[in-house]
Amino acid sequence: MSEHHHHAAVSVSDNDERAVARGKRLRRLRLIEGQVRGLQRMVDEDQYCIDILTQITAVRKALDAVAVDLLEDHLAHCVLEAAAQDEEAGKDKVEEATLAISRLLRS
Amino acid sequence: MSEHHHHAAVSVSDNDERAVARGKRLRRLRLIEGQVRGLQRMVDEDQYCIDILTQITAVRKALDAVAVDLLEDHLAHCVLEAAAQDEEAGKDKVEEATLAISRLLRS
Amino acid sequence: MSEHHHHAAVSVSDNDERAVARGKRLRRLRLIEGQVRGLQRMVDEDQYCIDILTQITAVRKALDAVAVDLLEDHLAHCVLEAAAQDEEAGKDKVEEATLAISRLLRS
Amino acid sequence: MSEHHHHAAVSVSDNDERAVARGKRLRRLRLIEGQVRGLQRMVDEDQYCIDILTQITAVRKALDAVAVDLLEDHLAHCVLEAAAQDEEAGKDKVEEATLAISRLLRS
Repeated sequence: MSEHHHHAAVSVSDNDERAVARGKRLRRLRLIEGQVRGLQRMVDEDQYCIDILTQITAVRKALDAVAVDLLEDHLAHCVLEAAAQDEEAGKDKVEEATLAISRLLRS
Repeated sequence: MSEHHHHAAVSVSDNDERAVARGKRLRRLRLIEGQVRGLQRMVDEDQYCIDILTQITAVRKALDAVAVDLLEDHLAHCVLEAAAQDEEAGKDKVEEATLAISRLLRS
Repeated sequence: MSEHHHHAAVSVSDNDERAVARGKRLRRLRLIEGQVRGLQRMVDEDQYCIDILTQITAVRKALDAVAVDLLEDHLAHCVLEAAAQDEEAGKDKVEEATLAISRLLRS
Repeated sequence: MSEHHHHAAVSVSDNDERAVARGKRLRRLRLIEGQVRGLQRMVDEDQYCIDILTQITAVRKALDAVAVDLLEDHLAHCVLEAAAQDEEAGKDKVEEATLAISRLLRS
């Protein structure tokens, strides 16, 4: 696992916490991969459309949960740390994050 | 590949067309599976949060496209065929489809 | 209130039912208008951003409910009636409705 | 127009900027109010469902734009200012904002 180059001056415990969060996120994404394979099986077996749609809804919710989790992590770490060092940098990070949220809302 | 029990009285060409649509849907879902594995790699390599969010947005869009495609198929086949045989059955199918759309909108 | 030109051959009771549905929809939209005016007051009084966002979420949900209600009405009436008269016309209506759903999902 | 109690120690020019942003937001919400009244007229005149759905999509997009604008303002001011004064307070604000985004995504 690579070193995160955006957080030079963080404590060991903060790095531990982030590694735990990353592990949890990875497990969620593996579950989502399994759900997508489940969708393939449903399509291949020509299961009932409405049941497949219900399962797609579940995958979307699971993806959203990962997105919201990532966003909180990003705001609490990257954005606040950038702002702590330089006000302008903080505002730039906020703008970047807002654009990402806007794309997510529109997808 | 199993026989679809909801479409007893459809022509061979219609069955062919639906098999083609199913194959296309399966390929899209395999691409989505690849995208989800890409997300795992991004998280594992601790890539920049905003880039991961952008990729999640892309997966959501791809899933939505499958959902809309399935929905069109469902409306054009299951719902219209049910309605052709029995008006009440048609309305029940419409209600069921509307609930699925509503869940999708809320997810 | 104008005559709906898309439903020439429907029974009186069906027309009554649709007028009732339209009245209900109109009341919902008036409530939404009131909610939007409430948002203006919140912005004007410089209320807390998060509270305004919560209220925007409520307006979105209310708008969605109207959209889903309209969609069900459209599928159960326009689409099924078109399909009952002509198979091709039914499929065209399904395609048009699917595009509307797709735009709604993306908004 | 009331004083915003969350920003005690900001400069005059920052207050001016925020008043301008609030005025712009108010104008957008008045446009949305007009769009909602337009929807009422469309329903009352029994216009074509798909056209009404297209208009609902437009209102949703307009509401989203206000939400994203508010969110950026909130992150750039409330959240960053809270974080500048106290790290824990900053993290609490991030959590609160993330929950609001999550509700918005699910609506």
